[in-house]
Amino acid sequence: MSDLAREAADRDAGDELAPLRAAFDLDDGAVYLDGNSLGALPRAVAPRLAEVVRHEWGRLRIRSWDESGWWTAPERVGDRIGRLVGAAPGQVVVGDSTSVNLFKALVAAVRLAGPDRDELLVDATAFPTDGYVAASAARMTGRRVRPVEPAAMARACGPRTAALLVNHVDYRTGRLHDLPGVTSAAHAAGAYVVADLCHSAGALPIGLDEHGVDLAAGCTYKYLNGGPGSPAFLHIRRDLQPRFDSPLPGWNSHADPFGMEPAYRPADGAARGRVGTPDILSLLALDAALDVWDGVDLAALRAKSLALTDFFLRCAAAYAPDGRVTSLTPAAHAERGSQVSLRCPGAGAVMAELVRRGVVGDFRRPDVLRFGFAPLYCRFADAERAARILGEVLGDVPGST
Amino acid sequence: MSDLAREAADRDAGDELAPLRAAFDLDDGAVYLDGNSLGALPRAVAPRLAEVVRHEWGRLRIRSWDESGWWTAPERVGDRIGRLVGAAPGQVVVGDSTSVNLFKALVAAVRLAGPDRDELLVDATAFPTDGYVAASAARMTGRRVRPVEPAAMARACGPRTAALLVNHVDYRTGRLHDLPGVTSAAHAAGAYVVADLCHSAGALPIGLDEHGVDLAAGCTYKYLNGGPGSPAFLHIRRDLQPRFDSPLPGWNSHADPFGMEPAYRPADGAARGRVGTPDILSLLALDAALDVWDGVDLAALRAKSLALTDFFLRCAAAYAPDGRVTSLTPAAHAERGSQVSLRCPGAGAVMAELVRRGVVGDFRRPDVLRFGFAPLYCRFADAERAARILGEVLGDVPGST
Repeated sequence: MSDLAREAADRDAGDELAPLRAAFDLDDGAVYLDGNSLGALPRAVAPRLAEVVRHEWGRLRIRSWDESGWWTAPERVGDRIGRLVGAAPGQVVVGDSTSVNLFKALVAAVRLAGPDRDELLVDATAFPTDGYVAASAARMTGRRVRPVEPAAMARACGPRTAALLVNHVDYRTGRLHDLPGVTSAAHAAGAYVVADLCHSAGALPIGLDEHGVDLAAGCTYKYLNGGPGSPAFLHIRRDLQPRFDSPLPGWNSHADPFGMEPAYRPADGAARGRVGTPDILSLLALDAALDVWDGVDLAALRAKSLALTDFFLRCAAAYAPDGRVTSLTPAAHAERGSQVSLRCPGAGAVMAELVRRGVVGDFRRPDVLRFGFAPLYCRFADAERAARILGEVLGDVPGST
Repeated sequence: MSDLAREAADRDAGDELAPLRAAFDLDDGAVYLDGNSLGALPRAVAPRLAEVVRHEWGRLRIRSWDESGWWTAPERVGDRIGRLVGAAPGQVVVGDSTSVNLFKALVAAVRLAGPDRDELLVDATAFPTDGYVAASAARMTGRRVRPVEPAAMARACGPRTAALLVNHVDYRTGRLHDLPGVTSAAHAAGAYVVADLCHSAGALPIGLDEHGVDLAAGCTYKYLNGGPGSPAFLHIRRDLQPRFDSPLPGWNSHADPFGMEPAYRPADGAARGRVGTPDILSLLALDAALDVWDGVDLAALRAKSLALTDFFLRCAAAYAPDGRVTSLTPAAHAERGSQVSLRCPGAGAVMAELVRRGVVGDFRRPDVLRFGFAPLYCRFADAERAARILGEVLGDVPGST
């Protein structure tokens, strides 16, 4: 056993979050470092979903909208996510995809900002859908999009800025951006912030209330483990809710949905972010998946996440042949999410071989290896093994240099 | 046994679709006439969903996007629905809610129609979400909404009409509208048709290709039995696809989703209607639910549906005290969907009592009893029993007249 492997074993033995791994189906022994793309399966999901299908749908049928709490599940599950993103109850609703929620939030932000502000600042390095959706929101509200590097975002906003679409953690590099700083600069300029939390929700403390973030959206299938394509969430800061003017005013966000009124009258609260009938099977699978978070201290989660990524970077430096990989992920803790991205020539072939040898990360074109460290179930031993096998693969697979 | 009960037994014995009922979990013997709101549970769903959760998500994890066909499921399941709505493969995609799909379709229709057409005609009797979404689409594209009674729709469209949002079957009355006639009038006027198929998909033959319907959306949790809030579908006529300009351009409809290109370049085909990551658990539950449709002849389905609703109307006339209920559903077959709506003073209390006695329909304010007849699993005996118990309830519950 190498020194690093021994250190990993010691650290796992002392990890207060280690018992949570047993709540996930990881029985195949995989080194699963792709929870930043699709979270592992919490064991609670399958039995709960079977009960929802067989009893709530199969037997109670339509009565479940009331009796099983289906109708209010988007807000109830939203509050559970609220705790994980630092939002007090009543501000988060679950449903639709992240893209659709970003569209709602951006259009609503522009409308909040009023007619005199004609530009939307968009993180130039964001996940592409953010830019596509922002362009559509701008086109449909008569605004223009200005792409800005995240580091320049706070300085870039001014009297013409309606809203800033900011990424909390970069999907490609794992870089954590300064959401509190940008929010504060935006507010000083009279603009609104829309935060994309896809790569931070469930990965680190976010503090939406603490920092006064206006609007936010994020997915639930990465660090929140809701299942493939599970419904996304939308956060609407409480004091903005009465003026939240959705571009997607479906019957589910009506003040009296069963009144079937011909004119739209928006509901109070986070329900204003709803649109159509909620997707109950996926929503309740997510609900079950969230059980594992009960009692988890987000400070401990963050500490473990940073320790894991620190340790992985050390192991990679020790095991990888000189110069074959370069970290794209910042060394500074304040700038790091819960993933490590390594630039590596021939990354596609390297990742394919890693997967064949039981280490699952993913590859992002053109040359990035991504390794996500979900602190609920990743072990220090996983980090050591992944780096060790990466070193072996790099020795076996010729580099392009 | 009454004559009507005997007739019901004879008709069930001669019903070629009768064996399909065994594919549903209706073991509790309920008279379930609410399949126009939430379809009954097909037995294939629970085992398939368990496999998706435990094996595809739990074991294959991220590999399932390719290996289990998750990525292309929206189009594959879309084609299965295509057969049921009369659309050749490649024109239907599954995802999002009906409301969201109507928004995409309406904005796309307005853009297809060009800048000189400034009005959207909307069925004044449609399910409210249609009107809310149309108002938003109009607001965001600088058009205006004109509400029109369905019967006047064909005559109302003219040179300023960009699009017509038409309801195929009215959710309240069960009236079937003339979709082919309206489509043909719209096309003659140079306008586009967006059809809401929520209450016709899986209830009767629709013939989207035959009638050249431009765009359509509908839900899958009623007659298609996809489960509570299962993802909706969007139909984009093949020749319009290259010009379909979505207001919700998410990464899933990009020509090269994993290229992560900063500029949006729409995919070819029905995939252009996609937005964010598809909701796999609900989508594959729907996929399993659709198995029951394999080999079902839609002409036979329609014949049974009309026979069931005819028979229920006869039974209700025979059993209900004089003048206590009035049918809102047209007597003419050409104007009837697969539900019967009865106006009844005190309908709320009457339906509550019906449910207590094992007959499940639903109540729509202010005074409507709705009974849906899903031809895949409803029996003539159900129709007779429902009408008989309705007669008893009306005898026991004093009318407000």
